[in-house]
Amino acid sequence: MLDARLVKKSHPEHRTIVQLSSQVAIGGNNVIVIGGPCTVESAEQMEQVASQLAVAPIHALRGGVYKPRTSPYSFQGMGVEGLKILAEARSRYGMPVVTEVMSIAQIEPVATYADMLQIGSRNMQNFELLKALGQAGKPVLLKRGLSATIEEFVMAAEYIMAHGNPNVVLCERGIRSFDTYTRNVLDLGAVVALRQLTHLPVIVDPSHAAGKRELVADLARAAVACGADGLIIECHPEPGKSVSDARQALSLEAMVELVHSLEPIARAVGRTLTKDQGAKTKQLAAV
Amino acid sequence: MLDARLVKKSHPEHRTIVQLSSQVAIGGNNVIVIGGPCTVESAEQMEQVASQLAVAPIHALRGGVYKPRTSPYSFQGMGVEGLKILAEARSRYGMPVVTEVMSIAQIEPVATYADMLQIGSRNMQNFELLKALGQAGKPVLLKRGLSATIEEFVMAAEYIMAHGNPNVVLCERGIRSFDTYTRNVLDLGAVVALRQLTHLPVIVDPSHAAGKRELVADLARAAVACGADGLIIECHPEPGKSVSDARQALSLEAMVELVHSLEPIARAVGRTLTKDQGAKTKQLAAV
Amino acid sequence: MLDARLVKKSHPEHRTIVQLSSQVAIGGNNVIVIGGPCTVESAEQMEQVASQLAVAPIHALRGGVYKPRTSPYSFQGMGVEGLKILAEARSRYGMPVVTEVMSIAQIEPVATYADMLQIGSRNMQNFELLKALGQAGKPVLLKRGLSATIEEFVMAAEYIMAHGNPNVVLCERGIRSFDTYTRNVLDLGAVVALRQLTHLPVIVDPSHAAGKRELVADLARAAVACGADGLIIECHPEPGKSVSDARQALSLEAMVELVHSLEPIARAVGRTLTKDQGAKTKQLAAV
Amino acid sequence: MLDARLVKKSHPEHRTIVQLSSQVAIGGNNVIVIGGPCTVESAEQMEQVASQLAVAPIHALRGGVYKPRTSPYSFQGMGVEGLKILAEARSRYGMPVVTEVMSIAQIEPVATYADMLQIGSRNMQNFELLKALGQAGKPVLLKRGLSATIEEFVMAAEYIMAHGNPNVVLCERGIRSFDTYTRNVLDLGAVVALRQLTHLPVIVDPSHAAGKRELVADLARAAVACGADGLIIECHPEPGKSVSDARQALSLEAMVELVHSLEPIARAVGRTLTKDQGAKTKQLAAV
Repeated sequence: MLDARLVKKSHPEHRTIVQLSSQVAIGGNNVIVIGGPCTVESAEQMEQVASQLAVAPIHALRGGVYKPRTSPYSFQGMGVEGLKILAEARSRYGMPVVTEVMSIAQIEPVATYADMLQIGSRNMQNFELLKALGQAGKPVLLKRGLSATIEEFVMAAEYIMAHGNPNVVLCERGIRSFDTYTRNVLDLGAVVALRQLTHLPVIVDPSHAAGKRELVADLARAAVACGADGLIIECHPEPGKSVSDARQALSLEAMVELVHSLEPIARAVGRTLTKDQGAKTKQLAAV
Repeated sequence: MLDARLVKKSHPEHRTIVQLSSQVAIGGNNVIVIGGPCTVESAEQMEQVASQLAVAPIHALRGGVYKPRTSPYSFQGMGVEGLKILAEARSRYGMPVVTEVMSIAQIEPVATYADMLQIGSRNMQNFELLKALGQAGKPVLLKRGLSATIEEFVMAAEYIMAHGNPNVVLCERGIRSFDTYTRNVLDLGAVVALRQLTHLPVIVDPSHAAGKRELVADLARAAVACGADGLIIECHPEPGKSVSDARQALSLEAMVELVHSLEPIARAVGRTLTKDQGAKTKQLAAV
Repeated sequence: MLDARLVKKSHPEHRTIVQLSSQVAIGGNNVIVIGGPCTVESAEQMEQVASQLAVAPIHALRGGVYKPRTSPYSFQGMGVEGLKILAEARSRYGMPVVTEVMSIAQIEPVATYADMLQIGSRNMQNFELLKALGQAGKPVLLKRGLSATIEEFVMAAEYIMAHGNPNVVLCERGIRSFDTYTRNVLDLGAVVALRQLTHLPVIVDPSHAAGKRELVADLARAAVACGADGLIIECHPEPGKSVSDARQALSLEAMVELVHSLEPIARAVGRTLTKDQGAKTKQLAAV
Repeated sequence: MLDARLVKKSHPEHRTIVQLSSQVAIGGNNVIVIGGPCTVESAEQMEQVASQLAVAPIHALRGGVYKPRTSPYSFQGMGVEGLKILAEARSRYGMPVVTEVMSIAQIEPVATYADMLQIGSRNMQNFELLKALGQAGKPVLLKRGLSATIEEFVMAAEYIMAHGNPNVVLCERGIRSFDTYTRNVLDLGAVVALRQLTHLPVIVDPSHAAGKRELVADLARAAVACGADGLIIECHPEPGKSVSDARQALSLEAMVELVHSLEPIARAVGRTLTKDQGAKTKQLAAV
C-alpha cells in the first residue's frame, strides 16, 4: 500500500470516530443509518421524509441539492434553497444532514447548512477539491470512485487529511462491472479490507450499488454483517416519482422496516444499532 | 431475462431443495457449510480436515482431485486416488463430498465417489460438459464464470436442467475487476438477484472471491446475512503449506470458529445453521 | 510472466509460421484474412460466400457447425453435415477451412474435415480440451477468453504445445468491459504485447469485438497497422438474416471492399496482403 | 444515445475543426501529433523537447504543470512557473501548447499561457469544471474517464458545449480492465464509434493506455489506421529520469521515428500527416 501515512492504522484496534453532531457519531460500536431522497425536491418532501425517519433508529438525513447529472439538461438541484430545506428538517427533527459538494465554491454554503460534506464518486480524484476540503471545518463523506482501486480510495482520503481535516468517512457504493442487471457491483471485500487497513469509519451505500430497490435490503444486511460502520440509503415518500434514481429508492415504510431488520444483525456481530447512541459513543471517543 | 424456462421461479415462494445425502440438503431453511482444502493432498490431510470439521456445524467436505491450473506444469490433482481418499472421509465421518469435474470423461468416476459434482468458473460455459451433466445422476454445483453475467449464469444452469438434471446449486465466487487487492470481487447483489429470479439454491464461495484469508470470515457473514443458502470455504490443516491457493485457506480452527459466528446471523434472517438438519429439511421438501 | 517455456520467444526475431495448407500460412510476412459466416446454414450459403471471397485476397473460410450458444434452446449448429458443407467449399475453391471445436469428442470429426480447429473464448481454459488438442494433428486457433489476462492466454497456448501440438495461432477478439455500446473492447495492446512475448502468430477478430458491423472495417485496419498477422471476420450473403450474430456480419461486398483497403496499410507496416503467398511463406519457413 | 443535442452529428459528413493556432487545426484531413513530457520539469527539458520535435511533423507540445497525482506527497507540478516555460517554448518554436487544468481557479492562468486546456480522466465528470470551461475562451481537450461509457463521455463534451464553448476535442486514453500487463486497455472501438456519433475531433493517447513504451508505437499506428484525428504521446529527453510515468515515455529520437512511420498509414486511409497544414485545413474549415 502506497504512502498512506495518516489514513493507515497505527495499531490493529486503531479506529477514528467522526462526530456528526453531539448525538451522532460514526465509527464507534453503534452502526448508524443515513436516509433520505436522492434529490431534495421540496420542503414538503423533506418534512415527510424527516418526520417518518426520525422515529426509527435512523440517525441522519441525506438529500442532494447540487446534483452530478450525466446530462447538462437534467435537473441540477435546488442549490442554496435546498440547503435551507435540509437545515429546516435538521433543526425540527434533530437529525444531522449530509449533502454533496461538487466544487470548491460550494464548500462554504454547504458547510454552513450541513453537518457532513459528501464527495461523490465522480469527484473522488478531484484533487483540488480534496485539498480544499482540508479546511472545510466539517466532516467529509468520501465516496469511492466508480473504478477506483482500494489504494486510490485510501490515498484520496489521505489528501483530505494531509490538508488538515481528520474527519473523513469512507463510503463503498459499488463499482463498475460488465454486468447490467445491477447498476454496479457492491464490493464488500473492499469494506472489510478498508476497515483492516485504515482507522477511518467505513459505510456502505447499497442503493447506488444495486440500482434496484428490491435488492437494497438484503445488501444492507450484508453490509452490517461484514462490519460496516453505517449505511446511507435512498428513500422517498413516493419512490416512483423521484426526480432521480427512482428505480432504487425505498418507500419510507420499507426504509423503516429495513432498519429494524438490521438490529439483530448488528447484535450478531457485537454491535448495536440504536437511536440513542450519543452518550455511548462519546464515552468511546474519550477512551 | 432470456429464455430460462426451467430455472426461473413459477411463483415468489418457489424454491428447490437439493439433497446431498439423507442428512444434508441445500435450499431449505438451514444454511449449509461446505469446507475443506483446495486440493486433496493425502489421506492424512483429509483425515485431519474431516475429523475436525465433523464436530462443527459443517455439513459437507470439498477437495479438488482434478485441478484447473493456469500452468500445465502445476500439479494437476491426484485423480482417482484422490476420489478414493474423499470417499473414505465421507464414509468415516458421514459427510457428503463435493469435487470438481473438468471433462465429460471425469463425470463417471466423480459421480461414483462424490455426492455433488462441481463445475468450475472456467467451465461455466463449457456447453458440452453442461449437457452431459444432465445425465450425471448427481447434483451439480455450478460456479459462476469469472465474467459471466447473471443471465449467462442462469442460462448455464438451464442447460443442465434442460438435459435432464433438476438438481443444480448456483455458486457466486467473485468476478473479475480492475482492483488487485482482492483476488476477485464478491458480487452479493448477484446472490440476492439469483434468489429472486430462480428457484435454485444459491451458495457463496468467499475464499476464491477474497483470495486473502483475513477477508473470508467477514464476507461469509455478509453472505449469510443477504440470504445465501450456504457457503463453500477453503481450509487446510497447515494453510501456508497448501499446494494451491495457500493465501486464502483458513486454518481448521479458524474455520470452526467462523461457522459458529454464522449461527446468530442466520437466526437474524430467520434461518438456522445447525448440523442436524436432516429431518427438518426433508419435511420442508415434502411440503 | 509465468512459466511459458514453449510459447515465449527464444530471441527477438523468433516467429512461428503455421501452415494451414500448402498455399496458406499464418505468421509470415503476408497478412492473412479468414472470412465467412458465424454459422454454416446451408450448402447454398457457403457456395455464395466461398465463390465471392475466393476472388479477393481472402485466404481461408470460417463457419460454425458446433455453436456455443448462451441458451440451450438456440440453434446448436449443423454438426457433421455442416462439416461436409465446409469441406465441399474448401475443395471447390481451394481455401482452407476453420471451425470451432467445443469438446474432445468433436476433435476427430472436425480434424477430418477442417484445416484448423478453433477454440472459442468460453473454452480457453477448458484444460482437458486443450490437452487433447495436443494430439489433434491440426493447427489450433485459440481465442482469448472474455476476461482472460494476457498471462492466462499465453499459458492456455502453453497447454496445447506442452501436449504435443506446436501449431497454435492466438486470436484477440475483445474483452468484457463496463461499456455496452460495443459488444466487447478490442484489446490491440494485447496483440502488440503477445507478438513481443511469444513467437506464435496473433490474429484479430474485429467482428466479435465490435458487435456492430459499422465498426468492423476501421478496427480491422487498426489491427493490421499494429502488427496483427491476420484477421478473422464474419460476413454473410444476407447479414440481416444470419441465424446468429446478425448485427455484426458484413455483406460479402463490404467484406471484399474491406480487404482491399487493408493492402496499403499492410504495406505501410512492411507487410503484404496478397492471395498468392504460398511460395513466399514457404521460403520464409525454410529460412 | 442520450440527449447529446450539440455534440451529435447533424449529417454523416458533419465534422468540426478545432483551431489550436493559425497553423494547427484538429479535425481536418491532416492527422496532428502532440508530443512532450508527462511533467514540465525545467526550461532546459522543454527546450530539448521542443527543439527536437519542432523539426518533425509534430504539431503541438504537451507538458503537465498541474499534476493529478494519486498521492498528496508526490510532486504536484511547477504551476505558473511551468506555464511560463511552456509559453517560452511555444513562442520560440511556433508550436501551440496543451496542458492540464484541474480546477476552475486554474482556467484563467492556463488559458493565458496555453492554446488548449486538457481535462484529465479523473475530472471528466467534474461537472462544475466542465461548466466553467464553457467560458474559457480556449479549446478543450477532454480525456475519457477511466471507466466512462461512450455515452457519459459524449455527454461530458455536451456540458462544455452547452455552456458556450464549441471547441472540444475528445481523447481516448485507455480504460480500466482486469489485466495488469498493460496499464489500461486502449479502446479503439470507442474512437470509431465517437467519430460516427459526433462531429468533434477524436484523438488518441497511446502512452497512458499502454503504460509501457514498447507498446506505444504500434498502438499509435493502429489509432491512425482506425481514423483518429490525432495523437498525444509522451516523450522525454531521458525517459528513465522522468519524474512521472517514466515507464511509458518515448525518447525524443523514438518519438520522431514513430511520427515518420505514421505518414504512410495516414495516406493509406486517405489522410495526410504533414507539418504544414495551415493553408489546407483553413481551406477545409472554410468549406
